[in-house]
Parts: sequence; C-alpha cells; structure tokens
Amino acid sequence: MGSSCGGNLPRVCILSTGSEITQGLYADTNAQELSRRLMDRGFEVMSHAAVADERDEIARAIRSVFGRCDLLIATGGIGPTVDDLNRGIFAELWGVGLRRIARAEAMIRQRFVRRGRPMPESNLAQAWIPANARPLLNFWGTATGFLMPTMGERPHALVMPGVPAEWRGMFDRYFARDVEPHFPNRSPRHVHTLHIALLPESEVNDRVRDLFDADERVQVGILAKQGRIRLRLIGGADARNAIAAMAQRMRSRLPAEAIFAEGPEEFTLEEATVHALKTEGLRVACAESCTGGGIANRLTNVAGSSAVLEESVVTYSNEAKMQWLGIEAPLLATHGAVSRECSMAMVQGLMKRTNADIALSVTGIAGPGGGTPEKPVGSVWIAIMDRGGRCESHLHHFPGDRASVRAWTENHALEMLRRWAKHLPIPTS
Amino acid sequence: MGSSCGGNLPRVCILSTGSEITQGLYADTNAQELSRRLMDRGFEVMSHAAVADERDEIARAIRSVFGRCDLLIATGGIGPTVDDLNRGIFAELWGVGLRRIARAEAMIRQRFVRRGRPMPESNLAQAWIPANARPLLNFWGTATGFLMPTMGERPHALVMPGVPAEWRGMFDRYFARDVEPHFPNRSPRHVHTLHIALLPESEVNDRVRDLFDADERVQVGILAKQGRIRLRLIGGADARNAIAAMAQRMRSRLPAEAIFAEGPEEFTLEEATVHALKTEGLRVACAESCTGGGIANRLTNVAGSSAVLEESVVTYSNEAKMQWLGIEAPLLATHGAVSRECSMAMVQGLMKRTNADIALSVTGIAGPGGGTPEKPVGSVWIAIMDRGGRCESHLHHFPGDRASVRAWTENHALEMLRRWAKHLPIPTS
Repeated sequence: MGSSCGGNLPRVCILSTGSEITQGLYADTNAQELSRRLMDRGFEVMSHAAVADERDEIARAIRSVFGRCDLLIATGGIGPTVDDLNRGIFAELWGVGLRRIARAEAMIRQRFVRRGRPMPESNLAQAWIPANARPLLNFWGTATGFLMPTMGERPHALVMPGVPAEWRGMFDRYFARDVEPHFPNRSPRHVHTLHIALLPESEVNDRVRDLFDADERVQVGILAKQGRIRLRLIGGADARNAIAAMAQRMRSRLPAEAIFAEGPEEFTLEEATVHALKTEGLRVACAESCTGGGIANRLTNVAGSSAVLEESVVTYSNEAKMQWLGIEAPLLATHGAVSRECSMAMVQGLMKRTNADIALSVTGIAGPGGGTPEKPVGSVWIAIMDRGGRCESHLHHFPGDRASVRAWTENHALEMLRRWAKHLPIPTS
Repeated sequence: MGSSCGGNLPRVCILSTGSEITQGLYADTNAQELSRRLMDRGFEVMSHAAVADERDEIARAIRSVFGRCDLLIATGGIGPTVDDLNRGIFAELWGVGLRRIARAEAMIRQRFVRRGRPMPESNLAQAWIPANARPLLNFWGTATGFLMPTMGERPHALVMPGVPAEWRGMFDRYFARDVEPHFPNRSPRHVHTLHIALLPESEVNDRVRDLFDADERVQVGILAKQGRIRLRLIGGADARNAIAAMAQRMRSRLPAEAIFAEGPEEFTLEEATVHALKTEGLRVACAESCTGGGIANRLTNVAGSSAVLEESVVTYSNEAKMQWLGIEAPLLATHGAVSRECSMAMVQGLMKRTNADIALSVTGIAGPGGGTPEKPVGSVWIAIMDRGGRCESHLHHFPGDRASVRAWTENHALEMLRRWAKHLPIPTS
C-alpha cells in the first residue's frame, strides 16, 4: 500500500539495537508500536532498522539516516553491560564527550537500596549521557534516556531503553514536552479504516479495486489476514472530506453485515463482538474443541468482557464432551466428534447447563495430525444457538497449518457471534 | 547480548518493503523468521530494514547494503500493483532491463483459470524479472521471485514475495539448491540455551553473571520476559566443547528445577509442560478466571496435547464458578472470588467433576479495572491439586498491564504444572 501522502511532515527513522532481534528471537515490536504512536502525532515514519550489538554496525546505521530524516528514535543499547554501546556511539558521532547526570546516578542507587540489593558498579554507566544531550530521567528502570540536538545533517535523536515499559514511560512523559516542540509542522494524517470480516479478499478486491486510484488525495491500502480484511484510507490534513466520500463509496459496494467496525482507530474482531453482545445485553457460552480456549481467550482480552462471557469449556476429549455437555457416546460413535451432529449437541448441552443467551461450539481438525480424506486438516464445524431455538451449524475448510486453522476458526466464530447478536446474515461456509 | 562470534560467516542483510510495516500495522515477523532460518544455516544476519513503498527509500535501502554484506534478502514489493516497485528497482540498480518469464506467465494465467476468475492484465507484471536474474517460480501464489547475481559491490540478492506462505515455499524449495552453493564458508553456529522459569532475572544474574566473559569462544546472552528467562550460549564451529563446559558451569549454579528445557532448540513453556505431563502419564483439568482460557489455549497450541488436557473451564463469572465447579455462594460472599478459599474450591470442584489427575485453578485481577487497595491489579491466586490429596495455593503479584498480568499468570501456571508432574519444588510467590 502507498504512503507518500506525508507531504512535509517531519520524517522519522527508527533504530532498534540488539542481537536478539537480528538473531530472530523477537520480532521488533518496539518499532511497530512507535510507528503507530508517531503516525497519530503527525510524523511520518520512513524506515525501521534493527542491527546487532556491534559498534560498527550501529554507527553505520546511525550515520545512514543523516540528511534524510528529522528525528531518529533509537531503542536499546543503553543498559549496564559492555554490549550497551549507544551512549558512546552517539557522543562520538556528535563529536562530544560524556557527562554524568548526578540526579540519574542517585536514582539508580536508590533503586537498588529500595530492593535491598547490592549494586554492581557497572550500573553507574547508565547515569552518563552525551555532553550536549538533554537527560530523560528513567522512573521505570535504570538506563537514563537522552535527546540529542540536531547538528548539521544530524537529526534530533531520541535515545531510550529497549524494555517496553521503560521506553513507554519515557515516551508518555517526555515526548510531547521535550521532542514535539522541535517539529511545529506536524500534522496528523487522517486514517479511516473499514474493518471487514468473512468476505473473501478477492471479492473485496473485485468490488472496490477500481476506487483505489480514484482520488489522488486518498491513499487506499488493503490488508487481509485469516478472514479479516482492512481497507485503509489515508490522507493529509486537507483530505478529511475526500476520505469520508471515499469511505461512503466503498461502503455502498460492500455488504453492510461484513463491515464489523469503521473509523480512525484500530479494532480487533473481539472488541466488536464484545461491544455487540454488550449493546444487545446478551451473554454467551462457548464449547471449544480444536481452538482450545482461543475464543474465550480473545473475548477476555477485552477489558469488561465479564459482562458478556457466561463461561467457556474446552472439551478437547470425547470424555469431556460427554461429561460437561451431556453428549452421548452413540452420537460420537456414529458421527464422530467432528460432525454437524456433535457441534449441534455441544450447543444444546451448553443451553441446558448454562444461563447464556447464545451458545457457540467449535469442533474440528487443526492438524498437523488427525486429518482423513473425508475430514482433512482444516475441517471445522461451528454451531450457534440461542434461547429462541434458532440453531445453525456450518462446515468450513480453513487453510494453512495448525496456528492458521485455529486463527481462522477464532475469527470466524467471533464474527458469527457478533452477527448473531445483531441479527445479521451469516455466511454458510 | 553479543553476536560477534560470526567470524567469516557470509553476512546477510534483510529488507522488508511495505508501508504497512512502517505505519505499524504489523511487526516485521518475516525478518524474524528469516533470521532464525539463516542462523541455522550458517549465515550471520547483520541487520533488518523495513521501508515504505517509495521508490527512493527502497533504492536507498538497497544501495546502503552494497559492500557490506554478501547476500541481501528482500521480501515484499513484487505483487501486481503500482506499489510493487522492487522488480524495476533491482533491475535499475544492477543496470539491466526486465525480461518476461514465459513459464511464470503461464502459471499465473493457469492459477486464475483454476479458480474460475477473470485475470486483470496487471497480474502479468509478476512474470517479469531483471534480465540477469534467475527466476524462482512461485507455486504458492503469483509473484515470481528471483535471485540477482553479485556484481562489484552488489551482493547476491534473493527477492521474494512478502506473503509468508509464498516466501516460505520459495525458501524451502530454492534456498539450499540455488543460493547456498554461492556461500561455501557457511558454518552453523552452535547455540545452546538454558530455558529457565520462575526465577527472578536478578537472581539468575547474580548466580552466573561473572561467567558471561569467562570464555571468549562463548558469547552469553540473557533474555527475560514475563517469568521466563533464556541463557543463550553461542559459539563458532570450534566452540562445541567450550559451550558444553560453560553450560555445565551455569547449570551447577542454578536450581535444577528452574531449568525447564535445555539444548540447541527453542522451547516454549507449554511444550515442556505437555512433555512432562505426557511422560508421567498425567491428565490435567483447568479452571481459569482471569486468564480466560489462555492456559488451555497455550497447552493446545502444542500438537498432541489432547493426551494431557482433560478439559478446561473458563469460569469468568461467579455464576459459572458455582454452576460448573460447585462453589458455594457463601464462600464467594465471605472471601470473594479472588481468594485462597475460592482458588482451592475451584480445584476441588474440578477433582470432583473430572477424571483428571491434576487440577489447576487461577483467579485474579488482570485489570485495568477491579483492583482494590487490598487486592490490587496483578493479584492472582494459583492453586493446584492432585488425586493424592496434595493441594497448594499461592498468591502472586504480577506486574504490568492486563496483557502482562495474563502472560505472567499463564507462564507461572504452566511451569507449576510441569514441576508438579515432575515432583519438583514450587516457589510460593
């Protein structure tokens, strides 16, 4: 998707240092979260870089942004160990020495005293910053952050620890106060997303593709993953109306029930589901087999979900299905656990045993084992039932490996709950 | 942690193109997974970069690796849309034109025919590659990958689609055959990790920190997250014995029960837990409140977990605790749901109602709401019980936000199950 609608926004490059990233132990989620925050605050992120804890690589990565961005944000590399090189490298590249921040040193000492632990002397290195930098005191850990001034081609540079709780603390406390005033021409871009579920990506494409280049003020992107699709419209400060018009045109071409949320924010499917159930005053009970608690887990990721989740049982084994849901052995023997009959018996069992308004069950084969020619890996029955006696069960064939089948199943089930609550049509496959 | 033990390994830079990454919609998990694969195959990853879909930014990012790596791996930017710029940019930077791969074009056309869909003409752009590149036919999608030859300072460049299923397919099919022969001096590094749980990071540090620099052939890294810690030992081809000796020294300084796995591979806590339960022939039942199915979900992430998970109930509400676990209203009224008494009644309820050998319950306050001065957010009771009548419940105070408290709780509970199965001591807080 395109992004060149930034115009003259201040340009940011993000640098993460740490061999644990280049060795693939963690994805660089700091860069992701910082990007979201910066976009909201009217900056344009040009690039992410992650480099190993090696002096030459870090210095090269920093030099490579000189002259092509207005702000560099670096996380990591300012801890107490010999691998923490960023303090010295920034000082060198800006041509200054290091200075000790007495207040920071006192805070580090206090932190160890409070915890009743002896302080290895090496920790005091964290109280030193480049001589021309503004210190950013760390109330969430021990590494002092700092803000380097711009100098010739060198951009402003905000240098923070890599631990999320620490850089988040610093960002919240210092960014608006100490960094933003240097960038008066910030301008938050308008973002408007149509959040779509249970519609094939190819169908969305067919319906709206010709609009992608219909208005040069509006950049359109399409992002699809495991049954949910985002149509993202982005534009500059002057594009608010153009975006609204484009959203209207797209909406008119898509089935209304497929748009589970819309607006400037990100939404998860489970947020929309919890919201719909809450609005309608409905409580749900789930019986999960192949998703193993994934649906309940995602519902309860949403704060306040206790208002809508009556209970959930993970009935992985046939015994559990009999014991907790009252499913009879002959049914399992005749039809198997992955069958319409079993999925229906599961929701009926929930209805008998709980006070929920809606019951949902899933039973399927997530793989890697367990598939047969008649029931290959990815075969999943999802059933839903309410107190009015309405009941449906559909067979799905979800693609990919175990994790993928589970994610597709969860997404499908969550969206079915939302549509059921709202009396919207549910696709049958 | 350090990584400079690569010696003369072939050096790789990874480039991901896509504004959805620089805008923070996704973390760059392609770079993470590629890094793991490359390390296993004896390459050293120097850096990751992610740039927006803009011609100048992409070209600059590619040029910036000239002369400083042996192989560039780029994902994304070779699809059918105008934002897909990589084909043209690579051709230009290598000073060549584009050529059409007839076989690739036929495959693209066939793909649409098979799906019974008309093919937008723009799709055929995906059959073109730089004139001097080797085509990598795509059997998993439509974008043809390619391998650019090294030329002067330009490294070899492997260019693949950004869709994980597509680049994984290409990597598995072509990397060993077409890419590795150019790099005879590959040498997989030896990695040995001690996987530790339920020991404070500071304690691990105190016990082994002085060994970190004890043998220059062995790089030591420590990575801590939400109750689990990795001590990673890495060395070159000649360091196998040195690593084994270092692992032995570290092991001797750590409580044996805290090391839940050890070896060259990555392990998850849930893998170790499922393995321990399986080995001991034990089946577990869980009652989850604040984790909302997260423990069951993680256990069932492990293929074959049906052998060890009897069932799990998510009893988020007091009603569910009464209904499914037989907890009595007076107990809840007197002690509250977040109490030793409730956590014990939950495991007792599971023992009565299931055939499990071990029962585990969690009840706590994940936040953001629900905290009180006596029971602040992060207060979690975890109880465990077996058929021998052994029963323990402990109060924990886990840090961070809702997601963090839930992750700490899950990690703690999974490790308690493993230790209980193995008759190992369990920490009481």
